[in-house]
Amino acid sequence: MNKARDWDQLERWDRSYYLHSTQAAAEHVYTAVESMDGNYFTLADGTRMLDFQSQLISDSMGHRHPAIHAELTRAMERYGHVQFGMAHEYRARAAKLIIEDVIGANSWAGRVRVFSSGTDAVECATNMARLYTGRSVILTQAHSFHGMVMGSTMMRGYRNNLTPDADRNTVRDVPGFPPHGYIPIPPPEPEDHAANGTLPSIVATEQIIQAIGPENIAGVITEPMLGGGGTFPHSAYMPALVGLARKYGFLWIDDEVITGFGRLGEWFGYQCWPGLTPDILAGGKGVNSCALPVGVVIASKQIADLFEKARWWSGSTWDGHPLVCATIVGNLEYMLANNIIQQVRQRGAYLKERLDALKPKHPSIGRISGRGLFQVIDLVNDKGTPIVPEDRFSAFTGDLGAHPNVIVYQETAKRGVYLGGFTPNTLKLGPPFTVTQDDIDLAVDALDAALDVVEAKYHKGAAKPH
Amino acid sequence: MNKARDWDQLERWDRSYYLHSTQAAAEHVYTAVESMDGNYFTLADGTRMLDFQSQLISDSMGHRHPAIHAELTRAMERYGHVQFGMAHEYRARAAKLIIEDVIGANSWAGRVRVFSSGTDAVECATNMARLYTGRSVILTQAHSFHGMVMGSTMMRGYRNNLTPDADRNTVRDVPGFPPHGYIPIPPPEPEDHAANGTLPSIVATEQIIQAIGPENIAGVITEPMLGGGGTFPHSAYMPALVGLARKYGFLWIDDEVITGFGRLGEWFGYQCWPGLTPDILAGGKGVNSCALPVGVVIASKQIADLFEKARWWSGSTWDGHPLVCATIVGNLEYMLANNIIQQVRQRGAYLKERLDALKPKHPSIGRISGRGLFQVIDLVNDKGTPIVPEDRFSAFTGDLGAHPNVIVYQETAKRGVYLGGFTPNTLKLGPPFTVTQDDIDLAVDALDAALDVVEAKYHKGAAKPH
Amino acid sequence: MNKARDWDQLERWDRSYYLHSTQAAAEHVYTAVESMDGNYFTLADGTRMLDFQSQLISDSMGHRHPAIHAELTRAMERYGHVQFGMAHEYRARAAKLIIEDVIGANSWAGRVRVFSSGTDAVECATNMARLYTGRSVILTQAHSFHGMVMGSTMMRGYRNNLTPDADRNTVRDVPGFPPHGYIPIPPPEPEDHAANGTLPSIVATEQIIQAIGPENIAGVITEPMLGGGGTFPHSAYMPALVGLARKYGFLWIDDEVITGFGRLGEWFGYQCWPGLTPDILAGGKGVNSCALPVGVVIASKQIADLFEKARWWSGSTWDGHPLVCATIVGNLEYMLANNIIQQVRQRGAYLKERLDALKPKHPSIGRISGRGLFQVIDLVNDKGTPIVPEDRFSAFTGDLGAHPNVIVYQETAKRGVYLGGFTPNTLKLGPPFTVTQDDIDLAVDALDAALDVVEAKYHKGAAKPH
Amino acid sequence: MNKARDWDQLERWDRSYYLHSTQAAAEHVYTAVESMDGNYFTLADGTRMLDFQSQLISDSMGHRHPAIHAELTRAMERYGHVQFGMAHEYRARAAKLIIEDVIGANSWAGRVRVFSSGTDAVECATNMARLYTGRSVILTQAHSFHGMVMGSTMMRGYRNNLTPDADRNTVRDVPGFPPHGYIPIPPPEPEDHAANGTLPSIVATEQIIQAIGPENIAGVITEPMLGGGGTFPHSAYMPALVGLARKYGFLWIDDEVITGFGRLGEWFGYQCWPGLTPDILAGGKGVNSCALPVGVVIASKQIADLFEKARWWSGSTWDGHPLVCATIVGNLEYMLANNIIQQVRQRGAYLKERLDALKPKHPSIGRISGRGLFQVIDLVNDKGTPIVPEDRFSAFTGDLGAHPNVIVYQETAKRGVYLGGFTPNTLKLGPPFTVTQDDIDLAVDALDAALDVVEAKYHKGAAKPH
Repeated sequence: MNKARDWDQLERWDRSYYLHSTQAAAEHVYTAVESMDGNYFTLADGTRMLDFQSQLISDSMGHRHPAIHAELTRAMERYGHVQFGMAHEYRARAAKLIIEDVIGANSWAGRVRVFSSGTDAVECATNMARLYTGRSVILTQAHSFHGMVMGSTMMRGYRNNLTPDADRNTVRDVPGFPPHGYIPIPPPEPEDHAANGTLPSIVATEQIIQAIGPENIAGVITEPMLGGGGTFPHSAYMPALVGLARKYGFLWIDDEVITGFGRLGEWFGYQCWPGLTPDILAGGKGVNSCALPVGVVIASKQIADLFEKARWWSGSTWDGHPLVCATIVGNLEYMLANNIIQQVRQRGAYLKERLDALKPKHPSIGRISGRGLFQVIDLVNDKGTPIVPEDRFSAFTGDLGAHPNVIVYQETAKRGVYLGGFTPNTLKLGPPFTVTQDDIDLAVDALDAALDVVEAKYHKGAAKPH
Repeated sequence: MNKARDWDQLERWDRSYYLHSTQAAAEHVYTAVESMDGNYFTLADGTRMLDFQSQLISDSMGHRHPAIHAELTRAMERYGHVQFGMAHEYRARAAKLIIEDVIGANSWAGRVRVFSSGTDAVECATNMARLYTGRSVILTQAHSFHGMVMGSTMMRGYRNNLTPDADRNTVRDVPGFPPHGYIPIPPPEPEDHAANGTLPSIVATEQIIQAIGPENIAGVITEPMLGGGGTFPHSAYMPALVGLARKYGFLWIDDEVITGFGRLGEWFGYQCWPGLTPDILAGGKGVNSCALPVGVVIASKQIADLFEKARWWSGSTWDGHPLVCATIVGNLEYMLANNIIQQVRQRGAYLKERLDALKPKHPSIGRISGRGLFQVIDLVNDKGTPIVPEDRFSAFTGDLGAHPNVIVYQETAKRGVYLGGFTPNTLKLGPPFTVTQDDIDLAVDALDAALDVVEAKYHKGAAKPH
Repeated sequence: MNKARDWDQLERWDRSYYLHSTQAAAEHVYTAVESMDGNYFTLADGTRMLDFQSQLISDSMGHRHPAIHAELTRAMERYGHVQFGMAHEYRARAAKLIIEDVIGANSWAGRVRVFSSGTDAVECATNMARLYTGRSVILTQAHSFHGMVMGSTMMRGYRNNLTPDADRNTVRDVPGFPPHGYIPIPPPEPEDHAANGTLPSIVATEQIIQAIGPENIAGVITEPMLGGGGTFPHSAYMPALVGLARKYGFLWIDDEVITGFGRLGEWFGYQCWPGLTPDILAGGKGVNSCALPVGVVIASKQIADLFEKARWWSGSTWDGHPLVCATIVGNLEYMLANNIIQQVRQRGAYLKERLDALKPKHPSIGRISGRGLFQVIDLVNDKGTPIVPEDRFSAFTGDLGAHPNVIVYQETAKRGVYLGGFTPNTLKLGPPFTVTQDDIDLAVDALDAALDVVEAKYHKGAAKPH
Repeated sequence: MNKARDWDQLERWDRSYYLHSTQAAAEHVYTAVESMDGNYFTLADGTRMLDFQSQLISDSMGHRHPAIHAELTRAMERYGHVQFGMAHEYRARAAKLIIEDVIGANSWAGRVRVFSSGTDAVECATNMARLYTGRSVILTQAHSFHGMVMGSTMMRGYRNNLTPDADRNTVRDVPGFPPHGYIPIPPPEPEDHAANGTLPSIVATEQIIQAIGPENIAGVITEPMLGGGGTFPHSAYMPALVGLARKYGFLWIDDEVITGFGRLGEWFGYQCWPGLTPDILAGGKGVNSCALPVGVVIASKQIADLFEKARWWSGSTWDGHPLVCATIVGNLEYMLANNIIQQVRQRGAYLKERLDALKPKHPSIGRISGRGLFQVIDLVNDKGTPIVPEDRFSAFTGDLGAHPNVIVYQETAKRGVYLGGFTPNTLKLGPPFTVTQDDIDLAVDALDAALDVVEAKYHKGAAKPH
C-alpha cells in the first residue's frame, strides 16, 4: 500500500464528509494521527509528538495502555453488547472497584451507573437531583463546562453555539438559551484571591439562592477545578458553597469528568477539601483513560437507595456496556496495583517545580495554579493583566490566531510537544500519569521557547525569540 | 476457578454497588450473561438463549460479529483516543462509508458526525435545528422515545421518571418537565387506520403549528416507526407531516437510532416513503451493531455547509473515537459486501409469514405490523381492544407482572427465546439480521405457546396452555 | 371655545405622544370620540354612531349608564383608594351580589376577587390553578385570547407580537414565546361540525394530556365561545373537554372576560352546558359594563377555601378598588332588578332572525352562529370557503384593507354603524344589552349594504353595490 | 339606616364571599373603612386615622383630591369606555402632560401608553424590551417587586406564593417558578455601604451577564429604590448597573410604579442620578394618586418609534380608558400648577429631621434612608443587626405577629396613625404629598411610642413602654 496516497484519500474523505466542530472550515488544519503509544502519538507525516495534554486532559494512563487493552481483548472473547436489564461480569467488577476499592465501602458512595459519555452522566445527575428533591432549579457556575446538554454549561463560548462564517465577531447561542431550570452563579475566586472575610462570590450566590427560594433549588453543579476555565478555587470557596447547599437543603453535584480518578493527585477533586463529600458525582474520561467512550454517575448511599428501590424509567442502550466496563476494570486495577495516585503527586510536584523555575524568566507568566498533573498558567501582558481582556469569559470571537494559548500550541508543536489551552490566556498542562521526568523536561523547554514568542508579541522590549 | 462461587460474588457486587434503572430492587431478577455469540447468548447457569430482540432491537449483526471485532482489534494496534481536533484513518473511512456508500454521494446527505450515544446525537440534532433556523421550538410526537435528555421524549413512562417504592401506582416526572422548547403533537395513526381524507393527527398538528406560529418552530422530530411504542404509521402520515415542515419552513429531524442501518429492510426508515429525505438524521445502534457505544448525526448538504463553514463551539470528548469508528467500518463494510439489506427483507418476509399463520389460532393477536426485521404484534382482549387499557400511553405503574408483554417474556424465556416488548400490549420482534429460518421457527413456536398463557388469563373460554 | 381648533391640537398630541398599538402609524386613522350616551357615540366631527360592537363586545349596558354612574358618584363622595388589607362597603356588596345573587349561594362559587384588568384576572387564575394542584402546565386552545401575559393567548396574531414596518408580511412573537408551562391544544370544532362519534379535537387533546402526563397539568383554560376567533363550539366539545379535566384531575379555568355577565343570554357561558361548572372563572368587562377597568376571579368553594385559609402573598394595589366595586354594584343591581338576561335573549333572538333573513340574499354569508347578543357571521367566497385562507389562524400580515371584516367596518361606518370583527372573515356582532329593535334594524341594513361591497370584490358576477 | 347593623352585614358578606390575599383567614382582622378625605380615613367604628402610608405608598395626593375628582366628574358627563382604536380628549391631554410638561419634550421620552395596572405596565415593558432587542432574558434584582406576573418579582415572599394553613413555616412558590427568561441578580448595596472600589453586586452582575451572554439579554428591570424592600441604593450602584446595560447593549427598564410622579422629591427616581435616563419606564400609582386603577408605560423616542411604526398586536380593553386618563389629567395639572414636587422635598426634609432626632433615643433605629416622602427605617436588635435575621429575604413565614414592623403597625394604630412596613425589620414612611407638619408630628410621636414597645421586646434592659 502506498501510504502517502492513502492519507491523501483519507484527508479528502475527512474534509468532505465529516462534520467538524470548533474550527471553521477555512481555519481547519488537517492533523492526522497515524498511531499512538504511551505518552506519544505519531502524525501521518511521521512526526512524533509528546502528548502533554493527554488529548483533552483526559487519557490519564496514556494511549493504548497494555493493561487496559489486555482486559478489553479478554472481554471481547466473551461479550458483545448486553442490555441494562441483564448483568455481566465486567459491570459487577467495575462497580465493586469504584465503590469498594477506590472510594471505600464505608465512605459516602452508594452506587455507580456506567454511561458512554460525560454529557449523559451530567444530564443523569441533574435529573436525579431534581427527582430526589422534587425541585427543578440547578445552579451552575459562570464559565463552567458540563458537557453538551443545553443549560448546565455556562462557559460563554463553548456550549454548542456558533460563530457564523459571515461574522467572526459574534457568537450565537442555541435559540432558547438559557433554558428553564438553570440559573447562573458567579465563578469561584481563584486560589490567590486575597479573601477578606466572606468571599464575594459566596455572598452573591447566597443572595441568588434566597431570591429564587431554596424550596425551588434541586442542586448546584460545580467542577472542583474549572476544567474549561482552569481555575482552582480559593480554599474557602468549596466549603462555603457546599455549606450553602447543606444550609438550604439542596444537593451538591460534583462534576469530576475531568478531575476524577487521579488527575489532581487525589482519586477525586473533592478530596482537596477534607470533610466534603458530594451527593452525586459525575465522572468520565479518567475512569478508563478514554480507552472507550464512558461516563459514570456515583450517588450517595441515601440517594442511591431511593433510586434503587424505585422503578426508575431511565434506560440507556449503553448502560453498563461490557467492553466499556472492561476498560474501567483494566484501568482501575492497574492504577490501584501500582499506586498511580502517588505517582501523579510526584510527577506533578516535579512539573510544578520546573514551572516555578520558569517564572522569573518570563514576564508573561502570571499565576501558576492547579494540583497534581493539572497545572494552569495564566498569561499576562506588561501590566500583569490578561492579554485578551475578556479572559475566561471570552466568546472566542475575532482572530483566534492572536490568542496567546494558540501561539503556544503552534510553537510547542514545532518542538514535538502537544501543549496549549482553551481560554485565550490560560495554558492547561495535563500530561498522562505515565509521563516521565524527561518528558516533562522536554515539554517545559518547549514552553520556555514558546513564551518567548508570546512575549515578543505582547511585551514591549522583550527579547526576540531565538 | 470455581465458576459457581465466582458468580455468587459477582451477583453480590452487582446487587450492592450498581445503580439499576427500570426495575425496582424488590422486583429485580438477576439475569447474568456469561457469554455471547452470533444470535445467542449464554446465561451464568449455562442456559443458551436465542436473542430474538437483539438486546434492545439494537445489535443488528448479532453479538461479537467477527468482521466487526476483527476491525476493532486491528484499530487497537494503532489507536487509543484521538480528540476531535485531529483526524485519523477510521473517522475518514466511517464518514466515507456512510455518506458515499450507504446513502450515496449524490443524495441528500452532506456530512456525518460520530458521538457515543443516541442521546447525544439527538441533543446535537435538535440544537443544530435551532441554530440553523434561529428558532427554539421542537415538536415531538406523543409516546415517542428520543433518549434521555429532558424534553424530546414524550413516552409517558420512560423519560427518566420515577415510580417511588412507596406507591407503585404513580409516576413522577423530572421536576420542570416538560421543559421550555418542546411541544407535543399527537402520535401517528397506525397503518391500518381507515383514513378518510386527511388524518386527524395531521389536522391537529397543523393547528398546533399555526397556534405556536411557524416562525417559532425549529423542527419536528420523529421516529419512522415508533421504537418504544412500536407503531408503523399510516402511509399518508409521514409525507403529510414532512409536508407541513416544508410548507412552514422548519426542519425534519429523523430519529433513526433504532430503525437506521437496515432494520426495516431499507438502509433507513425514511426510504419507506419514496421522495422523502430528512434534514437531519440521528442514528446509533445499527451503525456498528452496538459493538461499542455510538451515535451519529447526519446533516443535509445545506445544513452541513453552514456548520462546517462556521466555528461551532461543540466539542465532545468522544467525537469520532477511533475504536468506535473502527466498529462502524467493520460493520458497514461487511453489510455492504454481503447485501445484508436484501437478507433483512427475506428473513423479515419469512417472519411475517409465520406470524400471519399464527393469527387465526390466537384471538389475542390483534394487529401485526412493521417492516423488515421489526415486526410488532398488538395483543388484544376478548373484545379486540388492548388488554391494558392505556396501551401505548401507559405510565407502567401498578403490577407489571400482569402485563401481557411481560407474560410473553417469561414464557418464551422458558423455551430458550428472548422475546417480549416494552409497552404492555405490544410485542416487538427484532432479531439480528443474521437470524436463520430455524431461529425464526424456534422463536415463533415459543411465542405460540406463550400466547396460550396470555389467552388463558385474558380470554374467557380459552384453552388451558399445555 | 373654538372646538375645531381644540381637536386639531388634541389630534396632534395624540399622534405625537400616545403609544398606539395594533395599527402602524402609517395606517392609523384618527377617529376621535367627542362623547357617548347609551348605545351611541359621537365623533369629533359630529357624526353619531350606533355602537353595534359595544366597543370591544365589552360595554354591556352601553355607555354612561345612569345606574352605574349614579353609584359611582355616590361612592366618590366617600371613597378614594382603599388597599386590599382593609375592607369597605362596595367590596362587600359586589362580592355578595356576584356570589349570592348572580351565581347563587348554593351553587359552585366560593369567593370572588376584584382586579383592574382581565389580564390580571387570568394570570391570577392560572397561578391559582398551579398553586392548588402543585403542577405547572396550563393547556390553552389554539386561537384563543386570554389577555396580554405571555403564554396563555394562542391567537396567532394578537399576543403582543409585532409586524415591523419594514416587512408587513411577517409577525414576530415576543422572544421566548411560547414560555415554559403553556401547551397548545387544538381549537374546538364549530357548532355545525358534523360530529361522527368522538370529536377529533378531543382525541388530540387527550393524546397530548397523556403524553405530557396528567400529573404535570394544572389546568386547561378555555373561552366558552372564542372571543377573538368567534367560534361557538360543537355541543359535545365543552362537556368532553371538562370531562378530560375531571378524568385526569386538573382544573377547568373558564375565561369569561368576554362572555360573562350576560353576553350569551345566560349569566355565564358555562350555563350553555347544563351541569358544567368551572373550578376558576375569570371575568371582566361585563361585570361593570367597562365603566371602569375591572377583572374578577371567582373560585369554587373548595379552591377558595384553600386560598382563604392560607397566607397568600398576592397583593395587588387595585384589589377591590372602591370605585371599581361601586360600578360593579351599580351594574349588577340594575341588571338583576330589570331582568336584563331575559332582555339579552329577546333582542338576541330578534337579531338572529334578521341575520337569518339576510342569508339567502348574500352568498358571502357562511355560518351564522353564537348565542344571545354575540352573533358571528363567517364570510365565504364563491366556493363557500374562507375568503382569507388562513382564517382564524391569520397572523394579520399583508394588506389588511383587503380583509372582508375591514371592508365591512368601513362600509357600515358610512351608514352610522360601528360593526366589524377581528379575524379576517368573521363579523362579530355584539351590541349593548340595551340595544333596541330599531337599532338592530339600522345595523342589519348597514350590514346588508356592506356585504354587497364584499361580494362585488370577492364573488364573481355579484351585483354592483348600490 | 341602622349603621351598626349594616356594617355587621357587610362584614359577613366580606368575610364570606371575598377572596382575601396576604392574611390567612384565621389571622384576618376586619378593618372596614367608612370614608376617606385628604390625608385621613375613617373606620366603620368612627376611628379617624392619619394615613401615613398613603395606603400602599401609592395615593400621592391623598384621598378624594378635589382637583382629581372634579376632572373625573367632568369626564363622566361625556365619556364611558372608548376602545384603544379610537381617540378621545383625555388620552391626548394625559399623554401631552406626561411627555411635554412632566418629562419635557426635549428629554428622552417618546410616547406613553396607559393601562389599568402596574402589573400590566411591567409585562408590557418587558415584552417591549424583548421585541425591541430580539432577545429573551430579563435580569431582575433579588428582593425586587414588579407586580404579579410570574418571573420579574424576586421578592422571596410576595410573588403570588402560598403559606398553607397546615404549615405556617413554609412558602410554596407557584409551580414553574422561576419561569424561563428571568435571571436573578444580587440586590443593590444600601446607600450606607462602604464601597471600596467596585461594588460586589456589580461585579457579580457583570459575571452573570457574561455567563449568559449579552446577546441573550433583553434588559434589566430595576426599581430606583426598592419598593418592597425599601433599599435606597449606594450612589455608585445605578450608574454602574446602567453602565453595564449600555456596555452590553441591553435595555434599562425603570420600574417607577412606586417612585414615579414625585415620591422621591423628583418627578422620577431616575433623576436622583444626573445623566441617567431609562429606555422604558413603567409607572402607575402616583400618576393619578390611585383615584382609579392605572399603569403607564413610557418608551424612549427610539423605542417608541419602532413600535409606533409597526403593527403591534397588543390591544388591551383598558388601554387609555377616558375616566382613568381624566384622573391623570386632574392629578398632574394640579401637581404642576402647585409645584407639588417642591412641597414633597420640603415635607420630606421635615420628616427626615424629625426621624433623625428620634434616633439617639431609640437603639432599635438602625439605618434611616430614602428620599423625599419615602423614608425607611431599619430596625435592629441589641447587636445592631436585623431583628428578624433573614431581613429583606424573609419569606414571611412563622409568627408574623412577632415581626417588629407588625408591632409598629399595631402600636401606631392605637394612636390614630396608619404606619408600618412590609419586610419584617423595615418601616416604610410614605405619607401623602399633602401631609402637614402637624400630621408629621402626630405620626412621629406615635412611632416614638411604638418603638418603645419594640425595644421592650427585643432590647435587653430597655425601659418599659409608658
